[in-house]
Amino acid sequence: MPVLERMKHYSELKGYSKETLDTLAAELREYIVSVVLKTGGHMASSLGAVELILALLRSFDPEDDKILFDVGHQAYAYKILTGRRDRFPTLRQWGGISGFPKRSESPYDHFDVGHSSTSLSAALGYAKARDVLGAGNHVVAVIGDASLLNGLAFEALNYTKDSNTKVIYILNDNTMSISKRVGGFATHLAKLSSSTAYNSLKKAIKESCASLPKGQALENVLGKLKDHIKSIVKPINIFDEMDINYWGPFDGHNIEEIENVLELAKKYDKPVLIHLLTVKGKGYEKAEQEPTKYHGVPPCKAVAVPATVSRRSWSDAASSAVCALAERDKRVVCLTAAMKCGSKLDTFAERFPDRFFDVGIAEGHMLTMAAGMAAGGLRPVVFIYSTFLQRAMDQLVHDIAMQNLPVTIAVDRSGLIGDDGETHQGLLDISWSRSVPHLVVAAPRDEIGLSALFDLGLRRNGPMMIRFPRGEAIPSLHRIRGEVFLDDLPVPEILEKGTECALLGYGKTVELMLDAREIIVRDGGVPPSVVDIKCVKPMCVPVMEGLLKSHELVIVAEDGYKECGVGEAIASLAEKLRPSSRTAMVLPMGIPDLFVPQGTVSEQAEYCGLTPRKVVTMYEEYQKRTHRQGSGIQGVR
Amino acid sequence: MPVLERMKHYSELKGYSKETLDTLAAELREYIVSVVLKTGGHMASSLGAVELILALLRSFDPEDDKILFDVGHQAYAYKILTGRRDRFPTLRQWGGISGFPKRSESPYDHFDVGHSSTSLSAALGYAKARDVLGAGNHVVAVIGDASLLNGLAFEALNYTKDSNTKVIYILNDNTMSISKRVGGFATHLAKLSSSTAYNSLKKAIKESCASLPKGQALENVLGKLKDHIKSIVKPINIFDEMDINYWGPFDGHNIEEIENVLELAKKYDKPVLIHLLTVKGKGYEKAEQEPTKYHGVPPCKAVAVPATVSRRSWSDAASSAVCALAERDKRVVCLTAAMKCGSKLDTFAERFPDRFFDVGIAEGHMLTMAAGMAAGGLRPVVFIYSTFLQRAMDQLVHDIAMQNLPVTIAVDRSGLIGDDGETHQGLLDISWSRSVPHLVVAAPRDEIGLSALFDLGLRRNGPMMIRFPRGEAIPSLHRIRGEVFLDDLPVPEILEKGTECALLGYGKTVELMLDAREIIVRDGGVPPSVVDIKCVKPMCVPVMEGLLKSHELVIVAEDGYKECGVGEAIASLAEKLRPSSRTAMVLPMGIPDLFVPQGTVSEQAEYCGLTPRKVVTMYEEYQKRTHRQGSGIQGVR
Repeated sequence: MPVLERMKHYSELKGYSKETLDTLAAELREYIVSVVLKTGGHMASSLGAVELILALLRSFDPEDDKILFDVGHQAYAYKILTGRRDRFPTLRQWGGISGFPKRSESPYDHFDVGHSSTSLSAALGYAKARDVLGAGNHVVAVIGDASLLNGLAFEALNYTKDSNTKVIYILNDNTMSISKRVGGFATHLAKLSSSTAYNSLKKAIKESCASLPKGQALENVLGKLKDHIKSIVKPINIFDEMDINYWGPFDGHNIEEIENVLELAKKYDKPVLIHLLTVKGKGYEKAEQEPTKYHGVPPCKAVAVPATVSRRSWSDAASSAVCALAERDKRVVCLTAAMKCGSKLDTFAERFPDRFFDVGIAEGHMLTMAAGMAAGGLRPVVFIYSTFLQRAMDQLVHDIAMQNLPVTIAVDRSGLIGDDGETHQGLLDISWSRSVPHLVVAAPRDEIGLSALFDLGLRRNGPMMIRFPRGEAIPSLHRIRGEVFLDDLPVPEILEKGTECALLGYGKTVELMLDAREIIVRDGGVPPSVVDIKCVKPMCVPVMEGLLKSHELVIVAEDGYKECGVGEAIASLAEKLRPSSRTAMVLPMGIPDLFVPQGTVSEQAEYCGLTPRKVVTMYEEYQKRTHRQGSGIQGVR
Repeated sequence: MPVLERMKHYSELKGYSKETLDTLAAELREYIVSVVLKTGGHMASSLGAVELILALLRSFDPEDDKILFDVGHQAYAYKILTGRRDRFPTLRQWGGISGFPKRSESPYDHFDVGHSSTSLSAALGYAKARDVLGAGNHVVAVIGDASLLNGLAFEALNYTKDSNTKVIYILNDNTMSISKRVGGFATHLAKLSSSTAYNSLKKAIKESCASLPKGQALENVLGKLKDHIKSIVKPINIFDEMDINYWGPFDGHNIEEIENVLELAKKYDKPVLIHLLTVKGKGYEKAEQEPTKYHGVPPCKAVAVPATVSRRSWSDAASSAVCALAERDKRVVCLTAAMKCGSKLDTFAERFPDRFFDVGIAEGHMLTMAAGMAAGGLRPVVFIYSTFLQRAMDQLVHDIAMQNLPVTIAVDRSGLIGDDGETHQGLLDISWSRSVPHLVVAAPRDEIGLSALFDLGLRRNGPMMIRFPRGEAIPSLHRIRGEVFLDDLPVPEILEKGTECALLGYGKTVELMLDAREIIVRDGGVPPSVVDIKCVKPMCVPVMEGLLKSHELVIVAEDGYKECGVGEAIASLAEKLRPSSRTAMVLPMGIPDLFVPQGTVSEQAEYCGLTPRKVVTMYEEYQKRTHRQGSGIQGVR
């Protein structure tokens, strides 16, 4: 890759010929593909944005000017060209460079992203900061067509006029979300895309340039072109109606054309939206043909799966369970916000097309629509990733829980999630849902538990969250009996009966606690009890009280923040039991109070101290402490 | 009020003449005004929707058809006419009828509301439920122009086409939010409003009707009119572009005209949006002239203010503090989401017009824009009600906290809020924010504390939430010294030094704890300590440990949910201290796990057991328990 390897600084781009740029674009694609096939990552979006990024780096100063990428999937070429070429192979790995723009990683990344549709709001903020502080930089937001269809982006579009500032929005339109895009606005975009404005502009730019002596300032041309642009954009469009100047559509793979438009936008004194048409996966045949498959690519590593573990992912199991429900109850409908593939809902969508709803990137709308469906007599099951549920918490509280509506929320990708890093961790769902009245929050440890919870969700007359981790292989853990429910709530299950110490977990941490027990027993310790809490909210107080009274130490492990976790609730319960009864001491254990960076899930667990070894250490320390005191176990008479 | 008093059931409306309807409309207005002036409530919106509601009740069956009001401010006439006439004077009072539609109150209320912009999503949900279950009812959403500008409503508009169902949206356009409405879309609505379509439709309807023999089915007319409507709507409009049929604008105070359009809409087989122009406060001169003032009207009760208490509200004090900051630091900017009046920001807006941003009902956008501003070098202060912060939690986490950006969030109306009831309670902010890394969450007990926290927010290099209650008079409590900070964090303050028991509170519950202490002392108990926690997150561990070690009982009171509250954190800390040291028993006290209904704040506090008397009872019970055990105080050796 001669051009890419030779390049020392992005400023060299300005001197490159068209041919060199084309070579560089091809090299960038080759490099991205080769790395992402190894590390995993978001390939298709990044391949589609190569020319755009080259044009941006030739037209703007990425240190002073603020180029903000929405979501950030598309920014790999930007990372490579702004000083991160050699580190690029560490993409999404522990200690490596992030899959998303990140301020702490580079002075050229101006806003951390991961969740969609934040770039326009952030750009308006940056633009007003510039105005108030009297600076002169440009602010550019690059947003995809699917992200634009989210409510947050709409709020920013709506506010653009009143913000009274100059900002450049670039709509990178590849006509796709992760899979297909959704909605009436999408249809409108399609209508705009089919207009022939850009051919006309191309001609106009050529003519204007031809008539000027070489080296003459661009201003003259620009003056003429501004009017021309106004006149060539013929179709009705929503942006102009909202007082945002719409220019387009242009060919998003023609660097020269993009640069011409960017130069115009720089001179223009009002907000402008530039519509570029790109091809998702551009230049990599497989990705062009199957952009959904190549949206997010898993790393090519052989993962050893223990023989005792099924190869089915949690998402697979959850979607099968819901298919089974839908088969026997026609009130069951299924909703997703642009995560049909991620949540493995293809089968459901095929079998029950009239009861399947992909609302696009619109989590808030999805939850409120589910509330309306439930009020209207249906039994909706909403599939959502834990991190994206953060986008719809008010809808969960105000529209679902407050009315006690029977909506089941399948919270996928909860807990530590691996290589997407900070922005995508599913660590807040427990701490946020525990204080919401009417909600039942439960987490299965295996597939039998998972199915039983979906059954329960259908049976109950209120909202229920079912939490499960990222799509690893589901374990089958200590399944001696089926699920037991009391008053339509899951009852904690004592998997190992021990003495002195009880190890409590739910969902994924049940396995962790079983492993910890093995180590303790192997090391000659008193075999502890292991308990699957199952129902996080409401807590099963009688069983918990029994455990507290019959043990001396209770350790609670959870794959979520320790703050506001179940451990705190159990500690609080222990306090309440004192002084009238023997009560174990309670030690909560969970994710510490920090944002957990990218890496593998096990690297992250190690970093956070969420390991069997840590449980054993806590157990041993407790024993030492009580021993040193020379007074047996405190808190128990 | 002869007509209203005589009416036994809304079905009688269908037999009323135009004159009777006009009389009834006037009577309804008179009744609404007379009640709301006594009880307080949302007057102006409800006055503007009287004719619309009469037309809806004549055209639809409100039991079978689902009429959904957005926000619900405008639904008073609907409540009065659907069986709640006699109970209407109990509006917003404890045990009385709600200020918002509420399913548990009436079979005619189909969706609980309070927060804006949920009605379109809920309507799509109801419509799909009808389709899947094979029912034949109509679904109508009535939404105001300001609510329509929110992202949630946009997501529903965008999804309307793909939802492939029939739904009727009524845009009740009074050209106002609570104060002025915001944005480019608003400009578009204004453009639509000025078109003359409705005059033309009126004429067409008249002509068509005249040509038919009396009693002939409406269908013939409708057939002709459908085409006519298509042709008369001339201006470009966003709704049609999103494949939602736009009809309008029509006169929202002309019952006959509204009914004609509703009949058309009933027959039409696709989603339709009907644009009605109304006057906020219609028919009550004062409200028409000052609709902002009469949006929400306080009850006309003389409230006795103790002499020792200032008459300044918390919002007043907060906005003054921010004005003072802005005076000395030009990086300070101030943001609100349509709550300029409620948050008392008029002075700031007047003094610093270039640094004041009212973004409309767009909490998510507001927080992300603030993040962009902070990244760009400003020091934004965001004013938001606790209940509406629920709308922007992901933006708080993902855009502000994760990047550790210096945004100060003034969380107004936190804790119990009184007569707006369940939907507007500010009980989740603490439990949701405590688990968010990087956040500092603090609550002042008086104005000096409040100003000091805003100063701190400006000084610190990270995000900070400052929580204060609904706009009651700020107390001045035990102010012996100014605020003390350690490492730029507020340090807990021991207001009364006692023994045995320590009473901990923050914000409003500091006063509660001081009152409880007085009762205990008066009753001859051992004087307890009283401590202002001040900083909820991060907790000041050394001081808390000191308190735990030097007392036998610690009671923690908070004006928020007990689940995930600070009390649980302190209980958890106590557990950790065992067994190596003397440790007090910790009893958390807060709002129980339920949605708190409307009433006065003190009725709600009584209902929730958040009173000084309850603290005293807990203290006494503890003493009895430890006494009965005959073993002194447990947990302390």
